[in-house]
Amino acid sequence: MGPGPSNIYPEVAMALQRPLLGHLDPDFLEILDQTCERLRTVFGTDSAATLPLSGTGSAGMEAAFVNFVGPGDAVVVGVNGLFGERMCDVAGRCGAEVVRVEAEWGQPLDIDRVLSAHPAPKLVAAVHAETSTGVRNDIAGLAAGKGEALLLADCVTSLGGIEVRLDEWGVDIAYAGTQKCLGVPPGLAPFTASPRAMERRVEHPQSWYLDLGMLAAYTGPTSGPAARRYHHTAPVTMIMALHAGLGAVLDEGLEVAIDRHRKCGAALQEGLTKLGFELFAADGHRLPELTTVTWPEHLLPAGLDEAGVRRRLLHEYGIEIGGGVGEWAGRMWRIGCMGHTARPRNVTMLLGALADILGR
Amino acid sequence: MGPGPSNIYPEVAMALQRPLLGHLDPDFLEILDQTCERLRTVFGTDSAATLPLSGTGSAGMEAAFVNFVGPGDAVVVGVNGLFGERMCDVAGRCGAEVVRVEAEWGQPLDIDRVLSAHPAPKLVAAVHAETSTGVRNDIAGLAAGKGEALLLADCVTSLGGIEVRLDEWGVDIAYAGTQKCLGVPPGLAPFTASPRAMERRVEHPQSWYLDLGMLAAYTGPTSGPAARRYHHTAPVTMIMALHAGLGAVLDEGLEVAIDRHRKCGAALQEGLTKLGFELFAADGHRLPELTTVTWPEHLLPAGLDEAGVRRRLLHEYGIEIGGGVGEWAGRMWRIGCMGHTARPRNVTMLLGALADILGR
Repeated sequence: MGPGPSNIYPEVAMALQRPLLGHLDPDFLEILDQTCERLRTVFGTDSAATLPLSGTGSAGMEAAFVNFVGPGDAVVVGVNGLFGERMCDVAGRCGAEVVRVEAEWGQPLDIDRVLSAHPAPKLVAAVHAETSTGVRNDIAGLAAGKGEALLLADCVTSLGGIEVRLDEWGVDIAYAGTQKCLGVPPGLAPFTASPRAMERRVEHPQSWYLDLGMLAAYTGPTSGPAARRYHHTAPVTMIMALHAGLGAVLDEGLEVAIDRHRKCGAALQEGLTKLGFELFAADGHRLPELTTVTWPEHLLPAGLDEAGVRRRLLHEYGIEIGGGVGEWAGRMWRIGCMGHTARPRNVTMLLGALADILGR
Repeated sequence: MGPGPSNIYPEVAMALQRPLLGHLDPDFLEILDQTCERLRTVFGTDSAATLPLSGTGSAGMEAAFVNFVGPGDAVVVGVNGLFGERMCDVAGRCGAEVVRVEAEWGQPLDIDRVLSAHPAPKLVAAVHAETSTGVRNDIAGLAAGKGEALLLADCVTSLGGIEVRLDEWGVDIAYAGTQKCLGVPPGLAPFTASPRAMERRVEHPQSWYLDLGMLAAYTGPTSGPAARRYHHTAPVTMIMALHAGLGAVLDEGLEVAIDRHRKCGAALQEGLTKLGFELFAADGHRLPELTTVTWPEHLLPAGLDEAGVRRRLLHEYGIEIGGGVGEWAGRMWRIGCMGHTARPRNVTMLLGALADILGR
């Protein structure tokens, strides 16, 4: 129940046991095609350029900038947590002129301020679900006002856990992680870019490994003049795991899975409040899949600091929760309820364990 | 029996079934530390900066250039196959002045020509085991003559299959893949850089994801002023698989495993020659783990082209072998005998299947 990885779906565990196929084996290529199609469904997009990248969510972030931003391009980044901060670093390494629009940690981005920060940015970027703070930013609102700019959304912790409707909203570029609400181990970055974005991409990006032009040629059509071309050896086992995780989510029903996340998050947040914790993220912008809390000093038992409580949870109850990051290290917890972990029984167990430790 | 991925070791299949741990869980961090130590053993190095990168072998190649080469740096690349060619592309995207030294496909690099191609390169790079041609290049010879330059070796298809002794030879930077002689699925890039290389690395590389300075802070010491710092979510499951694959190789004994590859390769090459195939790689530079062959036109049965023979191998015998690449597509096969696949019984089965199909 940390901020990810979450527990994997049983279907994913079974996929990890399947015999290894070659990355050019026709049976594997069919699984790859199905994986891309399933990603389109969960992203809510028809974009052809939708594929799992061969790296973790952070590789998705790098691909999102390196393929669309070059030296001197104006990029507006909304920053209200660690991952918005990281976007500025990554965009800067592409030579972009980075315009930061900050909001306090725990608060959502001010959409109007982000949209008016630069007269004509090439790209506007924000994190949908800030894993460092538990805050949801209004991506639909940004998309509605983006104008000529491309809109980039980090969906690492939102995909499969809350509503993500890229085409309906008008998001051009998005990436996610596998180890959050999709219930798959970390190691791949689901990625998508709209035709509008692909038309404006950097032709020869500074990264060979993440060059979308070459990658799309591998995941693309299997025959005809634009037939599939080898780029790098695909991480076959992880793609089979993602295929199974997406299958589990879609078999349950995407809306049903999202509703499960919603209910678990609500129960957890109510229970934590009753125990005396304070919800950190602004009301109305709280993520159900990632709950952040602080506490009044007297709440923790004498002689046990927050790290001590987390160690007892891990060693006595087998429950992992996450600490705060940045200036909130030692003063905040981040509790995930994502993917296969998002079950009422897990909420009950954590709340019971905390009640034990706090002596409530 | 393609050019990779090879079959995985049974120990690796078991590791893939272990419960998922968090990337900051103390139990996982111990596995990560052990994995880095095992990588030092198989690479033959004491370098602290030895770790599994969170991408495939090609991400290792990108990390090797992006961290050590910047705009205007002179880089000499030996090119006698697809992966030497790829190095030039990757180095060029870092802004390097790339000096190519070519040899014909199937022939080894001329060490003297590589070493005298530029008066003072920052880096000299070559592929140890060219997966596109089956040729071994003389990395020890390059290291002996490198002078002030850093020496970079692509060990994707050599690590665990033939001798790799980085410190003894004087190699500064190396990367590998997991899916070749280590018998692990594709998805990670074992990587190492010497202290001498780390002193001369690019401080703020264009890639955030592959920034060795930040990565080394995560895999580094667990306490003290330089304590481990979160960078990105490590691909936990794949690292546990690599840990197990390295364990299998070291339990068998690295020398014993290398000798097994040698014997299987020799038997395969002898058998293929007897069947009428022609070995493509130059004598004295043939890789045992990757055999390349061509054939006289009359060898294949009437009405069956080379792709047809490979399809029959796959569908009737369950054996995958690889086709040629580049100008050798359709005219060459690449047959892997790596990792857990490098067993005499597999050699026997392939030779038997080919004899059936060819009607010998």
